[in-house]
Amino acid sequence: MTKIAFIGIGNLGFPIALNLIKAGYDVTVYNRTPEKAKPLAEAGAKLASTPQEATQGKDVLITVLADDKALLGICTDAAIESLGAEGLHISMSTISPETSRKLSIQHQQFGVDYVAAPIFGRPEAMAARIGNIAISGPNQAKEDAKPLILAGAAKGIFDFGEDPGAANVVKLAGNFMISAAIEAMSEAYTMAEKNGVSRQDISEMFGQTLFACPIYQNYGKAIAVNKYDENVGFRLPLGLKDLNLVLDTALLGKTPMPFANIVQQRLISGLAKGREHWDWTGLAQGAADDAGL
Amino acid sequence: MTKIAFIGIGNLGFPIALNLIKAGYDVTVYNRTPEKAKPLAEAGAKLASTPQEATQGKDVLITVLADDKALLGICTDAAIESLGAEGLHISMSTISPETSRKLSIQHQQFGVDYVAAPIFGRPEAMAARIGNIAISGPNQAKEDAKPLILAGAAKGIFDFGEDPGAANVVKLAGNFMISAAIEAMSEAYTMAEKNGVSRQDISEMFGQTLFACPIYQNYGKAIAVNKYDENVGFRLPLGLKDLNLVLDTALLGKTPMPFANIVQQRLISGLAKGREHWDWTGLAQGAADDAGL
Repeated sequence: MTKIAFIGIGNLGFPIALNLIKAGYDVTVYNRTPEKAKPLAEAGAKLASTPQEATQGKDVLITVLADDKALLGICTDAAIESLGAEGLHISMSTISPETSRKLSIQHQQFGVDYVAAPIFGRPEAMAARIGNIAISGPNQAKEDAKPLILAGAAKGIFDFGEDPGAANVVKLAGNFMISAAIEAMSEAYTMAEKNGVSRQDISEMFGQTLFACPIYQNYGKAIAVNKYDENVGFRLPLGLKDLNLVLDTALLGKTPMPFANIVQQRLISGLAKGREHWDWTGLAQGAADDAGL
Repeated sequence: MTKIAFIGIGNLGFPIALNLIKAGYDVTVYNRTPEKAKPLAEAGAKLASTPQEATQGKDVLITVLADDKALLGICTDAAIESLGAEGLHISMSTISPETSRKLSIQHQQFGVDYVAAPIFGRPEAMAARIGNIAISGPNQAKEDAKPLILAGAAKGIFDFGEDPGAANVVKLAGNFMISAAIEAMSEAYTMAEKNGVSRQDISEMFGQTLFACPIYQNYGKAIAVNKYDENVGFRLPLGLKDLNLVLDTALLGKTPMPFANIVQQRLISGLAKGREHWDWTGLAQGAADDAGL
């Protein structure tokens, strides 16, 4: 059975690692905070005390990390060399396309294939293996990665070609579109409330009609009641990290994105108001604040 | 059978009037351009040469007009008085909440009930009677209006209480949210294209996953190919009219709406670039223009 080094067991990584263990894969986990890995060890995972020890002699490295810096910290030459020629790295973090492109070149020096496979979906969706993944990188490497992605996290895999940064572009575009939907709902429901119309009623109508899709239905519930510190799936500072990546990528490609600018400012303002423990949906509170609610 | 005066047979009004005629209602049509009413006369409608003649002796007035000014031009005291006490006006145009509130007071002087029932849906949806309607006004009057709305246009009726302006607030909120989705897709797909990612591929993925709802799926197709002068269902100047109403309403209620401001500017810029014959989805071209595409 394929031997996997799994690095990064936060909200998203943990259920993916657990699914792979349950599916019978030989999984070795490294995490900066070893405590968090204990339940995985009880489920059958081996534990490693360094990234290099984790990758040694494995077929595949899977990473699910918080940001570019954390991933670059793991991907030392030693750790990638330790994975060995014909190794495969499935990189599932939300990072900049440029980082994926640079890592792909570094990996090639050691004969390792790099596949970008960032995840759409909250932790519950990972646990249920109903996430959606954008994937890009060398064709054979993507084929090798697919069974592991299906076993660990996703029902849908969408191929965006061989540029290792392409899947990261798609992930950033998607998170930006989610953030824009949050701000749009917030402005609309705030205008409604100021005109005596119930936020809940309008959210329910749109969730059943024009916008009958999970993003509007699920985020809409929180925005309808203006409550963002419960069911925190993805914290506000992580949302800001993603919008920063969106705008960095937009700048590199010379693409003005005025909606992305506004959402970024909402997230910065959320931090200024002490909302770092809120779900990122809480960027919606900005429009209500501005309207004196 | 209920006698209906029907005024306004543009893209949306025409199929609604035709459905009511087919359903066996006694329909009298007035239209500023009488030519357009001929196919309805052939289907069984009577024609009137003035609004007052149309409303005389009828139970119900239904209006589907382009803007506040057109509706106010129809709702002369003479025309409303001619409808007579216990008459009902079902006002389906997208207009300002303030206009609905003023008309409701005027109508009460003549014993006529005013119900706001603006429509969500393109002409094809009206023809198939699968539109969705937000409704507000006096409770009994709404009950009287519902069978006509179901026979003419809608499968879903969502009640927003007794304030005659409430349904108009909901309609404006909805059109704003659609325009924001168009701009969000446009910025995202433009960023993708500038990074070598196919607009079509990204549109297809999001239409199947995060945003699997008609607004993203249908508008997404035009934005994926950057083509806005075919299948024109709702022209760009009408979109600007609606965004102006959104921002007027937001100003009255003291609600800053930065996304609405940006979309309004996109529509104004579209007119400046000679795009008045485009579908309003064409506001999406603005982000591509700005990015040098």
